[in-house]
Amino acid sequence: MEIKIGRDAFLNGVHKVQGIVESKGAMPILSHTLITTEKKGIYLQATDLEIGLKRFCAANVVKPGSITVNARKLFDILKELPDLEVSLKKEDNDWVTLNCGKSKFRLPGLAASDYPKLPEYSEEPLMEFSGPQLREMIRKTYFAISPDETRQALNGLLLEKDDNHVNLVGTDGHRMTFIQRPLLKANGEVDKSGYLLPKKLLTELLKLMENDDATCSFSVKENQLAFIQEQQVLVSRKIDGKFPNYRQVIPGDNNLKVVVNTEALIHALKRVALLADEKSKMVRFDIQKGIMTLVSEGTELGNATEEVEVNYDGEPVSIGLNARYILDVLSVVEEPEVIMNLKDENHSCLLTVNDDRDYLGIVMPMRL
Amino acid sequence: MEIKIGRDAFLNGVHKVQGIVESKGAMPILSHTLITTEKKGIYLQATDLEIGLKRFCAANVVKPGSITVNARKLFDILKELPDLEVSLKKEDNDWVTLNCGKSKFRLPGLAASDYPKLPEYSEEPLMEFSGPQLREMIRKTYFAISPDETRQALNGLLLEKDDNHVNLVGTDGHRMTFIQRPLLKANGEVDKSGYLLPKKLLTELLKLMENDDATCSFSVKENQLAFIQEQQVLVSRKIDGKFPNYRQVIPGDNNLKVVVNTEALIHALKRVALLADEKSKMVRFDIQKGIMTLVSEGTELGNATEEVEVNYDGEPVSIGLNARYILDVLSVVEEPEVIMNLKDENHSCLLTVNDDRDYLGIVMPMRL
Repeated sequence: MEIKIGRDAFLNGVHKVQGIVESKGAMPILSHTLITTEKKGIYLQATDLEIGLKRFCAANVVKPGSITVNARKLFDILKELPDLEVSLKKEDNDWVTLNCGKSKFRLPGLAASDYPKLPEYSEEPLMEFSGPQLREMIRKTYFAISPDETRQALNGLLLEKDDNHVNLVGTDGHRMTFIQRPLLKANGEVDKSGYLLPKKLLTELLKLMENDDATCSFSVKENQLAFIQEQQVLVSRKIDGKFPNYRQVIPGDNNLKVVVNTEALIHALKRVALLADEKSKMVRFDIQKGIMTLVSEGTELGNATEEVEVNYDGEPVSIGLNARYILDVLSVVEEPEVIMNLKDENHSCLLTVNDDRDYLGIVMPMRL
Repeated sequence: MEIKIGRDAFLNGVHKVQGIVESKGAMPILSHTLITTEKKGIYLQATDLEIGLKRFCAANVVKPGSITVNARKLFDILKELPDLEVSLKKEDNDWVTLNCGKSKFRLPGLAASDYPKLPEYSEEPLMEFSGPQLREMIRKTYFAISPDETRQALNGLLLEKDDNHVNLVGTDGHRMTFIQRPLLKANGEVDKSGYLLPKKLLTELLKLMENDDATCSFSVKENQLAFIQEQQVLVSRKIDGKFPNYRQVIPGDNNLKVVVNTEALIHALKRVALLADEKSKMVRFDIQKGIMTLVSEGTELGNATEEVEVNYDGEPVSIGLNARYILDVLSVVEEPEVIMNLKDENHSCLLTVNDDRDYLGIVMPMRL
């Protein structure tokens, strides 16, 4: 096996597989990337046995074959090399030689035949999204995923088809995020209960699509989900489990509408939260005509009060909310104003950005 | 006590004391900063009982007095505030009220009378330096300080007067750095054996002088060293102990001169070091007429070879050196070329940047 490849293209490819590769684990081969030649280039492959990535890089194939090499070391070396042609060659005993300009490296490989196979996945797309839109959907819901590993069904996001739209939903039991966007295309039969996408798959999707506006397709084969974008496939087992019936959590009669400037609320809330209880992060929102007062008190840190102008002309209402949860939503909102939809101090706060309600943040109240 | 002060000026002052304040320690008051009014402003003070800082900030004093307040919380609050006037006021029971725009904070202070006194220091300068030059001197020697706390005398840099120059020297027993720069001024009697400046004092000096070109003076009172720059005083106990006789470590007959491009050597050495032994970081330098070959081999990581052009026409020589130590020196050098002055494989490598030898890096050899 022997290839010649530009340093920048190679570095970019190897950079993308870093997130999947396990740097320390029981199986040394999982810290390696598998490099396999194709007609006009190479496939770089990485897996942690849950998630697998296969990515094409154009290269000049001198002699076909495959090798594995430590992904981190390869990345560190490429990062320090000048942008010249890199020659990569397999030697006896699976050692790998890398030459570039006046640099020469010999790295111990492992037999390509021992590298774990990528799970079988389907190339028939069930749904197709625009890349930037999928990224937006993940970014705006992702933070509500539960970190509690005993609640497996909450350790990811629910992806479901909704007529000609797609929904992404996350919840940790204390708050929820929901986003709906139009589908580019749908084919074949979709599971009505949706698909649970694990957190690591979502993290990698966000990273891999970072500078890529191409269409992304989603396919399913048994319990393997695949996201395919141009010459790149990300395969992951779906989460087994039943996602809560989230629709019944979305309040229908939160009729007190408080319209507030997003930036102003972010700054005021960040300041008040500094003196909130470290754990609960509880801040009291006292709302009356035209003005919202944010209060944090009763902690040994001191107390804080902020006033924020609001567009509101209903009866006074107070509610205790976790400032962190509200800030998580505000920080991904692009709109200059958000609407806090309330009922009373015992019901959740529904954050919306428009009347379409295509993006929702729901935060449970805390006892005042 | 009551003051009014612009948010930006206050934030900058409080930012500077953060490095000295202990965030977690046995004495809660050490996490506070002491604020004392003066005629035209305030002094901010912080100490960890080893190092003390006192810094003036212009402010409008409404009512004289002093307070202490948690430095971290105060900083976090100021950081999030808009640049408006901040009003700070002492209440009963040492509580502190901070008002700014529509924000109001109440913070629990501690009695100013309980705050540790700044050690007595002298305002008579022994030596005066230009700020940027002192910074350069620290930056170029600092990394050779020993992290080994059992070798107290090596846990800082030696400052010594040398006629109308000043020297700063660091060593950890495996390498040494030396820099000499002209003094702006000298007064009074200087200790011939020099002064040992502790590492934390040096770190803080680097930070505090970051954007400040003013002259910095150095004074001594008993075992307290003071660096005074404009309205800011940094006081620290000097390290007790005897610094090694560093002059006998500087090689006098390293007559093999290898001239090499600084940038080229940095890149090649970084790459080869990737496959060097994690602990020793040993790289072999094989030098012959016109060419230097860097070799790392014999580790389980693989092996690497790099060729770098050099200006050298002596006999071939090989030496084993810690790549990290060489890179530490190269990374602070501003000259396009460095000179490796060698004798043989058993003697140290002397790095210089010019014939004046006003900056030296010395690295002990390792057994090949």
